[in-house]
Amino acid sequence: MVPSRGLFITVEGGEGAGKSTNIAGIQAYLQSRGVELVVTREPGGTRLGEDVREVLLRPREEPVVPMAELLLLFAARAQHVEDVILPALAAGKWVICDRFTDASYAYQCGGRGMPASAVRALESLVQGELRPDYTLLLDTPVDTGLERVRGRGDLDRFEREELAFFQRVRETYLQLARESSGRYHLVDASQPLEGVRARIEEICEELFACWAPRHPVAR
Amino acid sequence: MVPSRGLFITVEGGEGAGKSTNIAGIQAYLQSRGVELVVTREPGGTRLGEDVREVLLRPREEPVVPMAELLLLFAARAQHVEDVILPALAAGKWVICDRFTDASYAYQCGGRGMPASAVRALESLVQGELRPDYTLLLDTPVDTGLERVRGRGDLDRFEREELAFFQRVRETYLQLARESSGRYHLVDASQPLEGVRARIEEICEELFACWAPRHPVAR
Repeated sequence: MVPSRGLFITVEGGEGAGKSTNIAGIQAYLQSRGVELVVTREPGGTRLGEDVREVLLRPREEPVVPMAELLLLFAARAQHVEDVILPALAAGKWVICDRFTDASYAYQCGGRGMPASAVRALESLVQGELRPDYTLLLDTPVDTGLERVRGRGDLDRFEREELAFFQRVRETYLQLARESSGRYHLVDASQPLEGVRARIEEICEELFACWAPRHPVAR
Repeated sequence: MVPSRGLFITVEGGEGAGKSTNIAGIQAYLQSRGVELVVTREPGGTRLGEDVREVLLRPREEPVVPMAELLLLFAARAQHVEDVILPALAAGKWVICDRFTDASYAYQCGGRGMPASAVRALESLVQGELRPDYTLLLDTPVDTGLERVRGRGDLDRFEREELAFFQRVRETYLQLARESSGRYHLVDASQPLEGVRARIEEICEELFACWAPRHPVAR
């Protein structure tokens, strides 16, 4: 399926999977092919969304109610979809988004035990028909990823969770990848960076080759 | 209907209707009758909720998407319901809440034009069966209320709205009061304070008389 607009590509993965580094690689590759793109992230991507991100990530003494966490994520998402993602796609640009609604399934359903029906209801309320065209899942064993993150210093509210939480998150992502194998591209992020980069470039080439013939980029 | 727990009473009204002053009066009256109560407010009422309140009320250059606003309010509400309202009611206390979900119908549906179906879906997701037992609506003409608010100094993001917005909010509140006349007690807040106070005391007496025989307060 190639929609008559820019492609909406999400990059998902657990802590320390190397999303930032690899998104920079995707951006460089696509720009070298003349693709106009917007790189953004969730939670965040707008001023309101970044304020909400700060509220969400700040470590707290009192536990955050899972439903409150889920609604905060979708509040930031509502602003992001309307102000950033839809306008960019409508203008023919590609959108590369560091985490999107699959992260709500992985973290809030898998990690926190929220029912998937709650996420589905909010997804339909906030996104209407909008779904990612393709999703890159950077998968890495939980302990490897956490080691990378915990070497960085101050931990946010999510990074302080226990190992079992991240294992449930990883399993949920892998399950989503199996269920939506047409949309998902799995990347083994535990291999050396060169191998990850080569695999990502291969995926980008494939997407570009599929999209380009119908969308001449020299507008 | 007298539930086998404390009463959940919400106080609603537009800008400058005198909610704070009158809630202090309600609190004093009920405490003089020996009622144990919790006075709280929305958006807010918890640390997370107060952080969200700050995000919501801060004036911004970029308009906040109405769905994002609505979800932020329900995120704060989810935390408030679980951490404050339900535990207090279960312990037999009354909860007096300065604004609740009717404010979402008034401000986000009436004021911003969001569909009531979105609020109903979130209400059911976040509150389950919880609804206010009684609601006091402090009603005052929009221009009188705004005059009071605008005399106070710095205006928040809502207080900066145009007159027509507040007229739609007021009309929605009055419509809710007509539709739920068993739950709603209408208070003409434009009369002199003494009259408002007398009317509120009358309502409190009525609620207390109805509740007290089944709930001896000297526990």
